[in-house]
Amino acid sequence: MATTVFRKAHFNAAHRLHNPAWSDEKNAEVFGKCSNPKYHGHNYNLIVGVTGPKDPETGFVVDLSFLNRLITELVVERFDHKNLNEETAEFANVNPTAENIAEAIWRILRPELDDSLALKVILYETERNFVEYTGP
Amino acid sequence: MATTVFRKAHFNAAHRLHNPAWSDEKNAEVFGKCSNPKYHGHNYNLIVGVTGPKDPETGFVVDLSFLNRLITELVVERFDHKNLNEETAEFANVNPTAENIAEAIWRILRPELDDSLALKVILYETERNFVEYTGP
Amino acid sequence: MATTVFRKAHFNAAHRLHNPAWSDEKNAEVFGKCSNPKYHGHNYNLIVGVTGPKDPETGFVVDLSFLNRLITELVVERFDHKNLNEETAEFANVNPTAENIAEAIWRILRPELDDSLALKVILYETERNFVEYTGP
Amino acid sequence: MATTVFRKAHFNAAHRLHNPAWSDEKNAEVFGKCSNPKYHGHNYNLIVGVTGPKDPETGFVVDLSFLNRLITELVVERFDHKNLNEETAEFANVNPTAENIAEAIWRILRPELDDSLALKVILYETERNFVEYTGP
Amino acid sequence: MATTVFRKAHFNAAHRLHNPAWSDEKNAEVFGKCSNPKYHGHNYNLIVGVTGPKDPETGFVVDLSFLNRLITELVVERFDHKNLNEETAEFANVNPTAENIAEAIWRILRPELDDSLALKVILYETERNFVEYTGP
Amino acid sequence: MATTVFRKAHFNAAHRLHNPAWSDEKNAEVFGKCSNPKYHGHNYNLIVGVTGPKDPETGFVVDLSFLNRLITELVVERFDHKNLNEETAEFANVNPTAENIAEAIWRILRPELDDSLALKVILYETERNFVEYTGP
Repeated sequence: MATTVFRKAHFNAAHRLHNPAWSDEKNAEVFGKCSNPKYHGHNYNLIVGVTGPKDPETGFVVDLSFLNRLITELVVERFDHKNLNEETAEFANVNPTAENIAEAIWRILRPELDDSLALKVILYETERNFVEYTGP
Repeated sequence: MATTVFRKAHFNAAHRLHNPAWSDEKNAEVFGKCSNPKYHGHNYNLIVGVTGPKDPETGFVVDLSFLNRLITELVVERFDHKNLNEETAEFANVNPTAENIAEAIWRILRPELDDSLALKVILYETERNFVEYTGP
Repeated sequence: MATTVFRKAHFNAAHRLHNPAWSDEKNAEVFGKCSNPKYHGHNYNLIVGVTGPKDPETGFVVDLSFLNRLITELVVERFDHKNLNEETAEFANVNPTAENIAEAIWRILRPELDDSLALKVILYETERNFVEYTGP
Repeated sequence: MATTVFRKAHFNAAHRLHNPAWSDEKNAEVFGKCSNPKYHGHNYNLIVGVTGPKDPETGFVVDLSFLNRLITELVVERFDHKNLNEETAEFANVNPTAENIAEAIWRILRPELDDSLALKVILYETERNFVEYTGP
Repeated sequence: MATTVFRKAHFNAAHRLHNPAWSDEKNAEVFGKCSNPKYHGHNYNLIVGVTGPKDPETGFVVDLSFLNRLITELVVERFDHKNLNEETAEFANVNPTAENIAEAIWRILRPELDDSLALKVILYETERNFVEYTGP
Repeated sequence: MATTVFRKAHFNAAHRLHNPAWSDEKNAEVFGKCSNPKYHGHNYNLIVGVTGPKDPETGFVVDLSFLNRLITELVVERFDHKNLNEETAEFANVNPTAENIAEAIWRILRPELDDSLALKVILYETERNFVEYTGP
């Protein structure tokens, strides 16, 4: 019974790509202008997908109001208008690439959903660069 | 030989979310403003995906003119500018959630396609809420 | 000093096109399937533009939080998930064409803005049909 | 470890659909106006997806600068502002349907990526017609 | 009474930029890869805007079904799936730049509309390049 | 002879809204989370419009390759992947609101264009907030 429901949200944040184990030269070489120590930023567009059977009484896989509230309270309020490197626990020691942000969001949301539901996170860093994470 | 071709279409319809087995209070509690008895409506964007091998003579998985005609005649003409709850057989007794509409469209189109082809239906209720159904 | 700031919002509503001074036949002839007595609906995308000088202290033409609050409280809460013909004072006796909805929104918002500011309302009824109203 | 990174690109090209083994009449019957011998054209939007584990040092599945360079040098420079039928080796004897173009792009890019990475090609011929190819 | 209604349409065509009064070298120098003698092509997105007073009986500036029919019959059927340079009277001796195509469409539609209505043509050659023509 | 050509570009940058003449409390009160001292960021989408007569030899208002080069070299390279407050001369003492960024871009480009051409700058800070500046 393969139905997936998707909900779109967004947040705006500053970040830089940086591996603290590397020299500044190596960071600049690998990450280019994305490693600017003064930061740059993005409008992140987030799509969360939840797959499972439909509840026969509601016709919902999951109530989108509930899903929207989860995303707003646990993801958007945590990351919106923040400096990801300096102001979030998730990226204090993890490089905030789109891949790592998508996985962090998946890990935040996964415990909130019933085990019978599968979870997918799609994150647009720009209109041209995006990632999808479906779990380990 | 995994190629999928997609065709996008759209229809505009009125609907309300409603479970007739429930009281008005319970409907209002579960479905919120989506249960408004006077209805609201959406521009539904529909994407139909068909997966299969390519015909060696045409280079097509399926002729998009044929697929477009199927979608127009069997789906768009049935639902466009209609009140889904009151004017369609599909939702006379089924709650017209995006999940249920996507499944109904899948069931309408499935018999029209060769058994060797897989079918996927993606339905956008709004730019922020959408569903995907790939069959039972 | 011509700067315009724009804010986008949306609401979902049911409506029908109907002139009560006409017969049902004439309504059907002129408005086609848009005159369906059971209603259909749209995801309306609204863009509100405000033109004026920039405040030298803030660098704002108008505070977008203020503009967003106006739009949400006065427009979106009034029209979202409503049947425009049956449930709004604005369209009890006015045909809810995109042109008339845009003008109604303009009339709702105009008194809330300083006289030094010009107001423009753009309303998308679908991705292919939209209107712009800049005042009488 | 299922992370996919996507990169979007585009190219503009002329083409016609044509099977040289068929008569002009049969080509016109099957391919309709797409078989116009004087050609027509499209803005092709291309999305390339690469799936694999994240590099623990960079947090990347694949460096998007590298992926972008591959796409630009091997795909965009080959097809952009070209007549696909007359000016490319790939479609000298292959009908340039969206399905065949997607597969050709997949075959161009596949050898450039590590065997541990999966490759997906999504090609939009128009906003309403698109295809996805994930390999043989 | 400034209301403008807009209708969106599209057509796919091949073209090349070319001034026959110039040498091939000068054409290549000025128009670059757009001057490829074998042609390239685009998905042209067209937005037609009509400004005027609202009809008090319909609430329409112009009936969008009528406007859509004009655009389809006079513009889309003329240019869709055509080679603009070789197969259209408009560009037999006129360089089919986006500017010139927009003006040609304006000249085709202008006589069909009442003199009391103003006409605007917006033409997207690509998502990044577009033009607007509002008349001489 | 009113033709306008538009070219779209984008850049990603960090910024904060801040008036140095105000206390931190007043900045927080007026600019809310946009005043975060650690910065946030955006994908800025920029549309530059140039209005004028068409060159009879080229059919261009302005050569889009030339316009694209101006935008890339003078705007994108200056602002992309930068911290607007800390790393640009334009916003060292000017609050980087969308209004002020649009005006700064207009002032950068204006001297590069012939006096016979009018210039318009449209800047999207997010998909929902954007501004237009057409000069003093």
